[in-house]
Amino acid sequence: MAIQRAETADQARDTVNGWQTDGLSVGFVPTMGALHEGHLSLVRASVAECDRTVVSIYVNPTQFGPGEDLEDYPRRLERDCRAAEQAGADLAFCPADRAMYPEGYSTWVVQEGLTEVLEGEHRPTHFRGVLTVVCKLFNCVPADRAYFGQKDFQQTVVVRRMVRDLNMPVSIRVMPTVREEDGLAMSSRNAYLNEAERRQALCLYRALGEAHRLYRNGERHADALRAAMERVIAKAPLARADYVDIVDARTLRRAESADEQAVAVLAVRIGKTRLIDNHPLGEEFPEH
Amino acid sequence: MAIQRAETADQARDTVNGWQTDGLSVGFVPTMGALHEGHLSLVRASVAECDRTVVSIYVNPTQFGPGEDLEDYPRRLERDCRAAEQAGADLAFCPADRAMYPEGYSTWVVQEGLTEVLEGEHRPTHFRGVLTVVCKLFNCVPADRAYFGQKDFQQTVVVRRMVRDLNMPVSIRVMPTVREEDGLAMSSRNAYLNEAERRQALCLYRALGEAHRLYRNGERHADALRAAMERVIAKAPLARADYVDIVDARTLRRAESADEQAVAVLAVRIGKTRLIDNHPLGEEFPEH
Repeated sequence: MAIQRAETADQARDTVNGWQTDGLSVGFVPTMGALHEGHLSLVRASVAECDRTVVSIYVNPTQFGPGEDLEDYPRRLERDCRAAEQAGADLAFCPADRAMYPEGYSTWVVQEGLTEVLEGEHRPTHFRGVLTVVCKLFNCVPADRAYFGQKDFQQTVVVRRMVRDLNMPVSIRVMPTVREEDGLAMSSRNAYLNEAERRQALCLYRALGEAHRLYRNGERHADALRAAMERVIAKAPLARADYVDIVDARTLRRAESADEQAVAVLAVRIGKTRLIDNHPLGEEFPEH
Repeated sequence: MAIQRAETADQARDTVNGWQTDGLSVGFVPTMGALHEGHLSLVRASVAECDRTVVSIYVNPTQFGPGEDLEDYPRRLERDCRAAEQAGADLAFCPADRAMYPEGYSTWVVQEGLTEVLEGEHRPTHFRGVLTVVCKLFNCVPADRAYFGQKDFQQTVVVRRMVRDLNMPVSIRVMPTVREEDGLAMSSRNAYLNEAERRQALCLYRALGEAHRLYRNGERHADALRAAMERVIAKAPLARADYVDIVDARTLRRAESADEQAVAVLAVRIGKTRLIDNHPLGEEFPEH
């Protein structure tokens, strides 16, 4: 069946409420478009678990900081809608900026403790924008389950906390990172990389692999794991790390010793392109 | 029929969702308990307009500042439930603090522009607490309509803005202030007043009446209206004003000249008790 489109909150909500009145369960995949296999794996997970699936396609300006890539961020709505449809989605919610942030817009969802570290340290208004738009989208698309990718690890922690704290009636599902053949985590920003950058971008995956190898061999000193990751990044001359860390999955605090809750996280600039990736050390490493 | 009680978000939501599945409309009156005729008029408005009515009774700690009356705030749950039941409410939602603010609570709804003035100037974290708890309550009690009293005028403006900005699927209804026989606006805090204070507390109502009389007689200079109100307050020796102002109903900004959108607002301490009141100058004055 052809995918439906909604451009206003009321259109999206009416469609979702109609399904729920009919007793159908609804899954939701919020995206900024430029859909790749990572997004589509979330759509497929929703299609497998829910009777109906909604994908939102909205490049949220408030989660970009000054000097970031808001203007350059890839926009390809028609292609995205076709891809979402082929993956089995039933509704694409594609609101306009003026509908999401009307004149006089002034309400924000903020969080203390989890949002000042890692991504938040380098992108100070990022999570305010993410939490606000996710809160808004959940109100536009009142789904039973919402799907996020493990690649944006801190986002999953922060969104789960918001859902708990604000009593939002939605269940958050986090799905594994989808990777290119060589191991690079899929990201809409990979499109920015030239050939040399694309090769060196693999240092993120390799650094995580090295941390995992050491951890599996019994290394529990977080500093040793960090140093090993940094050595891998240092071998890529175009790479400049924003952070390379081992953190606790629940608190996002810097770990001293790595346990089952430890996650290796990193953000690295390859030329002008900023990439992130992570690996929970207690989980199997995705060998490529 | 006896009023039902819910103590957890899930209990409240399941009951409301059940009604909505049956096609019933739901009204919601959020309160901090110590119900008086003002609250009960909101319950009755909801009962008149909706098939089912929920009252929440929760003294929200996060909207009290340090040194305010959180400890002293009157708590009388059993009496409140009976009063809500007699006014026609179907469900009382009475959550515990630990259910509303569990360990590690860290998410807040904030607003720029409308929350730093008037009440916000004197109670800097007040609206953060109000917006956060109202957002939470709306997620626990997903009603079609929510009822607020005009007495908390700035709160109605701030909550309406949140509902618009965050795409909340609820319609906000604001009902007239209910007054004692002599004109004093009903408030749970009136219980703090001793006999002398109770008499002088009437200065708020009298000041609003004076502003209204001048406005009706053609006075449009906001400064003249403010000065007239201040003169009334000055006659009450136990009264000390936090603010006395004429503001625009939409922006809450200080008005230079009073028009149909102007609202006379004031906050006055009578002894240790802080009272607020307001009157939209374009509306008829409630003569007592």
